[in-house]
Amino acid sequence: MIFSESAANLRTSEIRDLMSLAGRDDIISFAGGMPDNNLFPINDINDIYNNFTTKEKQIAMQYGPTPGLPSLIESLGQYLKKKGLPVESNKILITTGSLQAINIFSKIFIDPNSPILVENPCFIGAISAFKSYQANIKSIELTKDGINIENLENFLTSSDKKPRFFYFTPNFHNPAGVLYSIDTKKKLIQLFSGQGIPIIEDDVYSDLFFYDEDASHLTPLKSINPQDIDVCYTGSFSKILGPGLRLGWMLVSPTIYEKCELVKQSFDACSPSFTQLIADKFLRTGKVYAYTKAVKEEYKERCLLMSKLLNEQLPDSIHFHTPRGGFYFWLSLPESINATDILKKAIKKGALFVSGKTFDPDGKKDNHIRLSFCNTSKEQIMKGIPKIIESIKELV
Amino acid sequence: MIFSESAANLRTSEIRDLMSLAGRDDIISFAGGMPDNNLFPINDINDIYNNFTTKEKQIAMQYGPTPGLPSLIESLGQYLKKKGLPVESNKILITTGSLQAINIFSKIFIDPNSPILVENPCFIGAISAFKSYQANIKSIELTKDGINIENLENFLTSSDKKPRFFYFTPNFHNPAGVLYSIDTKKKLIQLFSGQGIPIIEDDVYSDLFFYDEDASHLTPLKSINPQDIDVCYTGSFSKILGPGLRLGWMLVSPTIYEKCELVKQSFDACSPSFTQLIADKFLRTGKVYAYTKAVKEEYKERCLLMSKLLNEQLPDSIHFHTPRGGFYFWLSLPESINATDILKKAIKKGALFVSGKTFDPDGKKDNHIRLSFCNTSKEQIMKGIPKIIESIKELV
Repeated sequence: MIFSESAANLRTSEIRDLMSLAGRDDIISFAGGMPDNNLFPINDINDIYNNFTTKEKQIAMQYGPTPGLPSLIESLGQYLKKKGLPVESNKILITTGSLQAINIFSKIFIDPNSPILVENPCFIGAISAFKSYQANIKSIELTKDGINIENLENFLTSSDKKPRFFYFTPNFHNPAGVLYSIDTKKKLIQLFSGQGIPIIEDDVYSDLFFYDEDASHLTPLKSINPQDIDVCYTGSFSKILGPGLRLGWMLVSPTIYEKCELVKQSFDACSPSFTQLIADKFLRTGKVYAYTKAVKEEYKERCLLMSKLLNEQLPDSIHFHTPRGGFYFWLSLPESINATDILKKAIKKGALFVSGKTFDPDGKKDNHIRLSFCNTSKEQIMKGIPKIIESIKELV
Repeated sequence: MIFSESAANLRTSEIRDLMSLAGRDDIISFAGGMPDNNLFPINDINDIYNNFTTKEKQIAMQYGPTPGLPSLIESLGQYLKKKGLPVESNKILITTGSLQAINIFSKIFIDPNSPILVENPCFIGAISAFKSYQANIKSIELTKDGINIENLENFLTSSDKKPRFFYFTPNFHNPAGVLYSIDTKKKLIQLFSGQGIPIIEDDVYSDLFFYDEDASHLTPLKSINPQDIDVCYTGSFSKILGPGLRLGWMLVSPTIYEKCELVKQSFDACSPSFTQLIADKFLRTGKVYAYTKAVKEEYKERCLLMSKLLNEQLPDSIHFHTPRGGFYFWLSLPESINATDILKKAIKKGALFVSGKTFDPDGKKDNHIRLSFCNTSKEQIMKGIPKIIESIKELV
């Protein structure tokens, strides 16, 4: 009973409609937030599977411990440590996708009507999880450098009810593509220091940076490791290996870990051993590094091609920043324009995107368009983006 | 916040302790409810993986639809139809283990303090899920033929608050090993007919029957398809293929399905495509039939050997029925005896089991012992069961 049926329902049916369109051969889809099927490391997976010992194959078929296979927790720990994350003072829990991690956090932090704080726009999976626990979602808009700090400060000082947590995506935000500046991160830490408000940091895209010089901006809050903020960090294998494995993780303080492990146990006992073993080998053999390097190059080329087309052909009243990593362009239309109307036109022309209101926690603000470049070839981009631009021009 | 921390906590730490003991070489464990590592169909899985097309391997790595891969929903539908289940008038949702199905049902049916009805003893995973939604759990004891019908009738007529659902395990109950008689099932239908109380039917062991003549007793309530009871049926690949795949399913009415799909979407978006594809091929190639036939023969031999040892050596004051399928013996001790005391002695001798109170929703009633024969070879049974019997004899 504990979920907001009507709101979630609308989203589900919309997504179902979009997905059925996205599967049609005559539609070029910029809607999905999934890696390209043609880019999966199939040969690596073949190698990994064929090198499993019989004992490993047995482990793959068996229940594993609730927190994850010890071998994966170790190899993932090494992987995260290299990225500067405080692995030793925190604990890793393997989850069935990072959405499950968000769900677990929701279960331990939210009571019906609890206020929580998110960015606007916000990842739709998180919105749907938070709503399913009847959270009272407050949101603050994003700027090109991250959350609007001034509005955040106003909110924190004027709000009568302390939010149960702040949920944010610092690196290559979904849908907004934003990479938080170091300055915004520092201000975030100042604002939340000692407030007793945990921060959920959703960092599933940080490995997909296109420019080495951005490395310093990519530091998660969790790596800065502010001592008086409880940062609950979550990441995923979905963008660096494959979402079909359904594997994510959280890195959290031992106190929060204890509660999360209990919830995880009651949710699904453990995540799939079969895919955990694959992910473990993918990390241990170092294949992950060559693979992410290769896919980043491809995504960057697609991104720059899309940027070129949009820059050349979009009306001046449409604003966007070319992302420096991740999967998404986020086009801002004049306030009077409804992206859903544009979507209808685009579908008729044979192209698909997700309209802005999907990512508004209130399901209203609709003057944005999310364009994914993760799941379309350069040829499809060349063919499909003009269809989107034409549709926009008909209404703007 | 929405879970009963203390109760669940105790169980988690107990299970963790038991699991670490179960992994020790000098301990023979009759505690686990998992298939034997040596019995997994590794060669079948090799065949299946190596016959995947590149396109299938790509699907395996990708997100799938929330309700499950269409191909698996179809092949599972055929499998369930052969078992007499009403597949056409209901809908299948693939879940991340049947525990997730139980969790989804909990989320749609339970509000804090809602009364729900279960058997006593009851599957610990279900207890932990129900408690995590703060259910007010009422239980009625099992007899050798299923739930005590007289007490159930009294409960239903005298209780002032209607339970949100009745959860039960008709075939080779965990932990009690009980196979419901047809008569009990018929009486259940009479009692629940038109009451507006849904029944959650957890049927994960029915394929593991040892005697063909039991076939008629194995008919699930869902197959009888009573028109005025909403039976929410759940099953799993864990016992007929491998729990490491984390795949279960539900078969429910279209109305309940709609709600469950929403919850599933917010939980983990979809179950692992990788393992769904394996399960699909395991069904489609018919390997599942040869495999379950072979493992049943092995489990039956173990069961009969354990039965012989227990019959020969247990004191007369200990009662049990030799199971006709599934994984478990359930020993009833005199009421004054505490199974946890026996467990301490058994561990010292090098053998392990799960004590009764684990399966009591109130965590109290402790005069039972669950012995699994699924995860120990005949040699280990010969060596380990006498240790358990000795420990019992020291206290009875």
